[in-house]
Amino acid sequence: MAQSLEREEPYYFGAGPAVLPTGVLQQAAYDLLNYENSGLGVGEISHRSGPAGKVIDDTKAHFKELMNIPDTHEVFFLQGGGTTAFSSVATNLLASFVKKTGKKGKGAYAVTGSWSKKAYEEAARLGVDTEIITDSKKTYGSFGKIQPFEEWVKPNPEETAYVYYCDNETVNGVEFTYVPEYEGIEVVADLSSNILSRVIDVSKFGLIVAGAQKNVGLAGLTIYIIKKSLLEQASDDELKALNAPLTPIAFHYPTVVKNNSAYNTIPIFTLHILKLVLEHLIKQGGLTKQQEINERKAAKLYAVLDSYPDLYDLPVEKSVRSHMNVVFTLKKEGLDAEFLSKASAKKLTGLKGHRSVGGFRASLYNAVSEEAVDALVEFIKEFSEEHK
Amino acid sequence: MAQSLEREEPYYFGAGPAVLPTGVLQQAAYDLLNYENSGLGVGEISHRSGPAGKVIDDTKAHFKELMNIPDTHEVFFLQGGGTTAFSSVATNLLASFVKKTGKKGKGAYAVTGSWSKKAYEEAARLGVDTEIITDSKKTYGSFGKIQPFEEWVKPNPEETAYVYYCDNETVNGVEFTYVPEYEGIEVVADLSSNILSRVIDVSKFGLIVAGAQKNVGLAGLTIYIIKKSLLEQASDDELKALNAPLTPIAFHYPTVVKNNSAYNTIPIFTLHILKLVLEHLIKQGGLTKQQEINERKAAKLYAVLDSYPDLYDLPVEKSVRSHMNVVFTLKKEGLDAEFLSKASAKKLTGLKGHRSVGGFRASLYNAVSEEAVDALVEFIKEFSEEHK
Repeated sequence: MAQSLEREEPYYFGAGPAVLPTGVLQQAAYDLLNYENSGLGVGEISHRSGPAGKVIDDTKAHFKELMNIPDTHEVFFLQGGGTTAFSSVATNLLASFVKKTGKKGKGAYAVTGSWSKKAYEEAARLGVDTEIITDSKKTYGSFGKIQPFEEWVKPNPEETAYVYYCDNETVNGVEFTYVPEYEGIEVVADLSSNILSRVIDVSKFGLIVAGAQKNVGLAGLTIYIIKKSLLEQASDDELKALNAPLTPIAFHYPTVVKNNSAYNTIPIFTLHILKLVLEHLIKQGGLTKQQEINERKAAKLYAVLDSYPDLYDLPVEKSVRSHMNVVFTLKKEGLDAEFLSKASAKKLTGLKGHRSVGGFRASLYNAVSEEAVDALVEFIKEFSEEHK
Repeated sequence: MAQSLEREEPYYFGAGPAVLPTGVLQQAAYDLLNYENSGLGVGEISHRSGPAGKVIDDTKAHFKELMNIPDTHEVFFLQGGGTTAFSSVATNLLASFVKKTGKKGKGAYAVTGSWSKKAYEEAARLGVDTEIITDSKKTYGSFGKIQPFEEWVKPNPEETAYVYYCDNETVNGVEFTYVPEYEGIEVVADLSSNILSRVIDVSKFGLIVAGAQKNVGLAGLTIYIIKKSLLEQASDDELKALNAPLTPIAFHYPTVVKNNSAYNTIPIFTLHILKLVLEHLIKQGGLTKQQEINERKAAKLYAVLDSYPDLYDLPVEKSVRSHMNVVFTLKKEGLDAEFLSKASAKKLTGLKGHRSVGGFRASLYNAVSEEAVDALVEFIKEFSEEHK
């Protein structure tokens, strides 16, 4: 069979790893074998070589441009994804707090879905003192709502190293519309599933972390945007004296930043794809434009689902509906398989809900085209008319 | 400029990330866009989907076949490389030892070069009790020799969780010819730079770790081959009671194995390349054949360097010369730049020595062809005749 680098526009709504722009993958395919006419692929060169350093610097510069990152903040990259970040966030930010206050401090967690719950559990497991300041499931019996901010337990700035929240919960389909800020406490946000999907004000955050594999690239890299002052950390000895857990050196933020994200071997091919995605995004008009498209995509899909209230159940309260992950179930029993197979016949795939919640989930990340969403909306209309 | 997936055979001797077989990269380039005619690239699918599970299972099966891995051992994959392994090895093996003995135990390190030294330092830093059982630099003033095994400090099996050594030291160019085994103590080997380069007896090892980016793939993945009995670990609470450092969950071996290397999002594209490299290796005749080729490549290069003793200094003692990383310097001052530029004119690149030791290093990993080594040998002959 002849092989080619051409493909039809995918109508794929998987929750991640997710679809990437075809043009980006085509360029990456060539660069995998022969990067900038060097005779070597971009994955075959030393991570400390000039060309690799340029990939790192360019990717950082693109993030700064796209997100309008102020000089108070630094961008760096680490291997791993959200799960790796759960531990590194807790131990690094604890070390910053010890440096600043001499006290161990604790992490305050907003538990609004599966991912923030896991983040909390990992910090607690590692021996970080933790406090839950809101727990949607405890309050409402499910993760379909977020407690009004004024009702959260107010953490004490004297003893709180950071407030952690997940801006968009992929599994549960809830997304924040504001930053939960407390005077004098650093905010840490997990933006793994919505980074670069809309305009945000980076200056509000102590730390932003985001796995690449949903909106911006292949699995294997995490983006960190940190307030520079948080790179001041207590020494290992000071931490040991307080019985605070240490960060493995490969995830020790000051060491990584000091080495421009190349303390250990950064996966340059994966980073190169991330760089190409950012260049594509800049060319398309940046985050203002992307936000406009993403809002339109989500609005169209929620509208069609809302228009058949007898058929579909949308478990998420309207005010916190995610623009990225649209979660729904069919009210009638026994129709799920038919829905999926008919969708698949129209090449609409990746719609099955997360194994922990069932039903359906359509993920509308940046690279999911409006054309794909229109096709999905059209299909849902047809299917619904048939079954209403 | 027209782009293509063709390229000339690279004559690249970089120490890693390193060259990969052109045919593997070509196949991967197609699969990046459209995997098995699914319309989606292999990096765009869920790590828990059927096709991704098959990539994981096939890669494991290929390792078992190539390395003749006994049923007593399990294969798994983690993100990261050597540096990430330094911490995970120490904390996981400590937890296995606590399970077995109820005691904290220590890690015994053979320090025979830069990488084993870093592994030791990281374990000590994290609060693991450590013991150095040989230190080449302390004994000989440099890492060019390995102390005879019988002269090493003999660790006590009652209190030693593991003996750690690095089978091939990339920076220093020394390679072991035997496994340093002690009755009743698990052996941990870092094979990052020589895995699959020759036949080894896996049954001798408690744990083998190897970053992919030298002999077998792109940066971003580490291969672990572990004795199944070591997957029995003490609980977090038991470890906390002993003040032993915990392993972050993404690197907790029992959790990763229980989830078939997909507890968190494994980089499937990177793993797919690893799988293709193994299939290429099997097709070429497996490790017996590869070892034969690698021994020939190294013998040719050492022979030409040895034949000009007035020109070249080879700092490594003959008995421990690496087959993977051939380290040498020019005795005459001021010739280094000329050597590199004349080599480069013949398309021979990646020959500069590690920044910490200077001089030259030719890395002869599996994917460096015998043709490339012959071209290098020819060049060295010419250069040497000119300057003798």
